[in-house]
Amino acid sequence: MVRNEGFNEKDSVEILCIGSELLLGNTLNTNSRWIAEELASIGLPHYRQTVVGDNSKRLEKVLIEATTRSHILITTGGLGPTPDDLTTQTLAKTFNIELEEREEILTDIKNKLQNSNDGSFSLNRKQALLPKGSEIIPNPSGTAPGIIWQPIPEFTILTFPGVPSELKIMWKDTAVPWLKSHINFNTVLTSRTLQFAGISESLLAEKVSDLLQKTNPTVAPYASLGEVKLRITAKGDSFSETRNLLTPCEEEIRQRLGLYCYGSDEDSLASVIIDLLRKRKETLSIAESCTGGQLSAALTKIPGASDVFLGGVVAYCNNLKKNLLNVSTKTLEQHGAVSSEVVLEMANGAKKNLESDWAISISGLAGPSGRTQTKPIGTVHIGIVGPEKIEADYQNLFGKHLGREGIQKMSVIRSLDNLRILLLSRS
Amino acid sequence: MVRNEGFNEKDSVEILCIGSELLLGNTLNTNSRWIAEELASIGLPHYRQTVVGDNSKRLEKVLIEATTRSHILITTGGLGPTPDDLTTQTLAKTFNIELEEREEILTDIKNKLQNSNDGSFSLNRKQALLPKGSEIIPNPSGTAPGIIWQPIPEFTILTFPGVPSELKIMWKDTAVPWLKSHINFNTVLTSRTLQFAGISESLLAEKVSDLLQKTNPTVAPYASLGEVKLRITAKGDSFSETRNLLTPCEEEIRQRLGLYCYGSDEDSLASVIIDLLRKRKETLSIAESCTGGQLSAALTKIPGASDVFLGGVVAYCNNLKKNLLNVSTKTLEQHGAVSSEVVLEMANGAKKNLESDWAISISGLAGPSGRTQTKPIGTVHIGIVGPEKIEADYQNLFGKHLGREGIQKMSVIRSLDNLRILLLSRS
Repeated sequence: MVRNEGFNEKDSVEILCIGSELLLGNTLNTNSRWIAEELASIGLPHYRQTVVGDNSKRLEKVLIEATTRSHILITTGGLGPTPDDLTTQTLAKTFNIELEEREEILTDIKNKLQNSNDGSFSLNRKQALLPKGSEIIPNPSGTAPGIIWQPIPEFTILTFPGVPSELKIMWKDTAVPWLKSHINFNTVLTSRTLQFAGISESLLAEKVSDLLQKTNPTVAPYASLGEVKLRITAKGDSFSETRNLLTPCEEEIRQRLGLYCYGSDEDSLASVIIDLLRKRKETLSIAESCTGGQLSAALTKIPGASDVFLGGVVAYCNNLKKNLLNVSTKTLEQHGAVSSEVVLEMANGAKKNLESDWAISISGLAGPSGRTQTKPIGTVHIGIVGPEKIEADYQNLFGKHLGREGIQKMSVIRSLDNLRILLLSRS
Repeated sequence: MVRNEGFNEKDSVEILCIGSELLLGNTLNTNSRWIAEELASIGLPHYRQTVVGDNSKRLEKVLIEATTRSHILITTGGLGPTPDDLTTQTLAKTFNIELEEREEILTDIKNKLQNSNDGSFSLNRKQALLPKGSEIIPNPSGTAPGIIWQPIPEFTILTFPGVPSELKIMWKDTAVPWLKSHINFNTVLTSRTLQFAGISESLLAEKVSDLLQKTNPTVAPYASLGEVKLRITAKGDSFSETRNLLTPCEEEIRQRLGLYCYGSDEDSLASVIIDLLRKRKETLSIAESCTGGQLSAALTKIPGASDVFLGGVVAYCNNLKKNLLNVSTKTLEQHGAVSSEVVLEMANGAKKNLESDWAISISGLAGPSGRTQTKPIGTVHIGIVGPEKIEADYQNLFGKHLGREGIQKMSVIRSLDNLRILLLSRS
């Protein structure tokens, strides 16, 4: 049991990312940010992050340093099957503990590799070698298990693979429950993230500027392209106390921001729309051009999308807009492919041919080439049609500095948010 | 003049990013990756990155550690005007050197702020206080200058603001020329990344196991879901020497791995396919079901995709497979939507209706629900049709443990790689 009585310096958690690809700048270190955010959300203090390469000697040096600074060390990377994956062996060597082969891991690896007939098992065998006395962090989606291991008193190491998707599942399934049951939280932290669309970070911050000054709960804004979040964090002696602090603050924010707030925590615009349509027993189809499949992909990433999403047409060239979506040659010639007239015909064509209740269409200039005399890069038209002859179109001019990917992403977010507002205004 | 004779451990450069927002996970640390990439490109060895918060005591501790490890320390962050910006003061305090006000900086700050009437100059004044004996790194786009400072023999610190755009200009304008003239580059590093598909990390590692033992150039594998990379890094006295070391090693790997190697450095499967089709003046369309738009999206992320990609149909429900892709009711009933027969009809329907030379189709079970009596989650059929009556179909069984997103991603990668192999086998 790790003590946690107000946390002195040494009671903190340290993150160590291992991988030469990070030192060569080949890979962006998204893992340390993700873990840092998780540590903040469960209220564990965290004062240092380190990156070292796949080098046993230098890794050993950092491990020994960490024992003098922190109670808990979280490592990522170096758990793979190849010779440059050195984390587990180096840990065992540093603390002078033997490795032992774990039968259950070996079986699990064999099962996972049985569909790949390339005879690669011999290398993977080393992933079943773990230090004596360590607990396993199972890896449901890969062959590299992690460990929870206390090699010396008051110092526990948790290891994870560098693959972000594997790390995240292992963290949520095993590490969070372990941390919650083994660390004596005298202080309880509860946080909730509210999600916003259609409003800038600065305007949102203005509308809640008094709340940003609060000390308990704290309210902090985070922005990424096209979306803004507010995280509310309450501190107290019990969960009922933190809930009582958090709830009125959340209600106040929701009241001030109204429809700008589309959900909380794990919600996404796509999941919110699928839920809204499912409740109304209505279906959706998509006709997209400059987003090239990304709008359909955003919806179909959500499990259960097939309840409401029928399909889409990626009408990247004008011929398809005519053949599959009934857009008339005349409209294309008169108004151009990037116009309100064309997106409305695209949406109506999708609704009719794909036999859906609602349809969204997008046509725009994502760049880098394609600028016309009257329409700059970043011009994006969105059309939405629905039951009872609902028709709406939206013209956007996204900043050229966002680049092709940014303009595509903004188009997807705006179109989903436009449909959300339409659905809510009719319920 | 910093010595650099073959670089011993201490002859390396270390990166220190300062900012509590990094420890709270609010900000992704793109600066350390960018600087790491720059260091690799000018051939400076770099073995460690550290992140600490806006805390003078903890910052001082890292500074003292760094003097024992490295010749050059590059810091980002903490140069702003607010009280939590502590870098310059802490540096001066750590090495016991006085700060002095620099007239030219003060004038520069005044000029830059004259258009903002919010009376913020009093705060900014502290940005003109620099340690005695330090050189200035001018900041053309902000008020925070950096410094180049050797507080003790054999240890030089370069400071930069945390704003990426300011950092980048200052790095290129001042730091790179300084490093090039003050460091005796006896060693040059050159690296190249080779990209592979259709082979597991372990099998790839087996095929080049002797090369993984080499010390110059070094060869190191990296894996992510469905793709593997090998990075070759050569060290030498000049770029021509490193090229001479790197090229034969690259050729040897390409020879051994043949078609498994699809490209190098910035190539992706989608960009390689677009290039192959562009050269042949042939076009492509897509008919996808379980990937829900992700295959189209992967292609249209590449600038210039419109040269060869005509569009796609996301046939998420069976009706669309019939209406837009001419799949027959009989085939659907006899073989089920997830079958070789259906994907071939889908691909032929897309090729015909979208008037393309090639078409790829995907139909599968990505889960979590949808398992049939005979077909488990992870079953994915891919069809490809092309000119001269080319028809090919591929049955995959991806591990259920990959989850919905993993199965979708693997399907996209496999289908692109299948088309690549077909295109290459016909060229």
